Amino acid sequence: MTLAVLIDGAAPRDLASGVAVNERGLHYGDGVFETALLANGRVRFLEQHLERLNEGCERLGIPVPDRATLLGEIERITKPLRSGVLKIIVTRGVGRGYRPPANAQPTRMVVMYAAPATIKAQIAVQWCETRLGRNPRLAGVKHLNRLEQVLAQAELRDAGVDEGLMLDTEGELVCATSGNVFVVREGLLITPDLRFCGVRGVMRRQVLCAAVQLGIATREEPLWPHDLNAASEAFVTNAVRGVQSIIALDALHWGEAPVAAALRKALGL
Amino acid sequence: MTLAVLIDGAAPRDLASGVAVNERGLHYGDGVFETALLANGRVRFLEQHLERLNEGCERLGIPVPDRATLLGEIERITKPLRSGVLKIIVTRGVGRGYRPPANAQPTRMVVMYAAPATIKAQIAVQWCETRLGRNPRLAGVKHLNRLEQVLAQAELRDAGVDEGLMLDTEGELVCATSGNVFVVREGLLITPDLRFCGVRGVMRRQVLCAAVQLGIATREEPLWPHDLNAASEAFVTNAVRGVQSIIALDALHWGEAPVAAALRKALGL
Repeated sequence: MTLAVLIDGAAPRDLASGVAVNERGLHYGDGVFETALLANGRVRFLEQHLERLNEGCERLGIPVPDRATLLGEIERITKPLRSGVLKIIVTRGVGRGYRPPANAQPTRMVVMYAAPATIKAQIAVQWCETRLGRNPRLAGVKHLNRLEQVLAQAELRDAGVDEGLMLDTEGELVCATSGNVFVVREGLLITPDLRFCGVRGVMRRQVLCAAVQLGIATREEPLWPHDLNAASEAFVTNAVRGVQSIIALDALHWGEAPVAAALRKALGL
Repeated sequence: MTLAVLIDGAAPRDLASGVAVNERGLHYGDGVFETALLANGRVRFLEQHLERLNEGCERLGIPVPDRATLLGEIERITKPLRSGVLKIIVTRGVGRGYRPPANAQPTRMVVMYAAPATIKAQIAVQWCETRLGRNPRLAGVKHLNRLEQVLAQAELRDAGVDEGLMLDTEGELVCATSGNVFVVREGLLITPDLRFCGVRGVMRRQVLCAAVQLGIATREEPLWPHDLNAASEAFVTNAVRGVQSIIALDALHWGEAPVAAALRKALGL
């Protein structure tokens, strides 16, 4: 459910309108976004979300939004609420044709959605057929070109399955449809390095930092499907859902997940 | 310049609004589009555009728009005009989260823009640094995930350059930033096969058909940058701009372009 919307600081008349006809976010996916959790009246990891938003804008050559303006809008929209999901979209603004306008006037959208009713600490996952194309130019950026994720989630038809794991076109493990993936192997915490595709998640980074604090050795390196077979545990990270232990993947099953539990505790999730 | 807009059959109050806040086309690029030329009061190759639009919807699992409804909207919007550029967007509609809604209500957008002031029959092109990711799942579809094209056109800073040629991440020649590319070699007309990426252009297909009618042998096969060196002529095709002969690419120059000329004549361009 959509609770509130600000587009460039103004509330649209209704949800059925408010976005410009020639919005480049619509025509080309020419923008970036963030999805953060509002809990107890505070946006979790807000600084980290804003930092990544700015990095994404810089990668795409979109003018970074004014910090005070954006913070003011987030403050306004979250103030009446205790919990929810905050989505921030920044696009290159309106314009016609692929070529970015010389003086782009970015669009800021700040939207509040209701918080998910429940967040599972344990999930069952499947492999997705839909692959991720490789393109280092866009790798890591949380941009608005998300058709691959849409098609991958369309595959999740089994009511007992919560998430899907995605490979890139060469068969490397990259991520979940809406989160990053980690495996634990011989006490080492490993996550794909995302050099070709995938999003550098805010929760992914928090987990890597927390692991260092806990004395758990970490690595960002290429992973393949067979790395799940050798994993003593595996989990998915997402800014809203936190750290979700994978308990089932086809014929594979996992029980105890001490590393995920320690990370959740360390991060206060 | 935007001349007229219909969103699901209704004209929005103004250009600054009209698109829904939770439009999946904006959030995920979850849709397809067509760009066609209106000339002398008629939409050129309208049937072919509608056919590809439907194919794109089917590839993405978006319900195909009702033909009579869409044709009626195109008729309404083009009737007062003699010339222009018609853009049709069909998205999966509104919705929250990557997962496609079970009962998607697609959004139809029909927009008229002013026709380009001039269309060059001869163009200078450059190589783009921005590469296209490979993903057979999306190859050929004119979908709304177009960040690669945006970033490629941002490279076209030289006023003497009209277009850019794009390679995929493995170095194969795929297309121009907003068109398909053809080369002529020993009388043979060759265009990339687009098995990994790129858009199956309406004008590309018309050119391939016209070549067959003219007795010119055609091939769709992998091409590489060096294939330009061996080309007796090369051209870019686009539904609005037609067939544009490449006369310069870095140190390469071409003069006479009899095949492009014959194709333009055969297609009435």
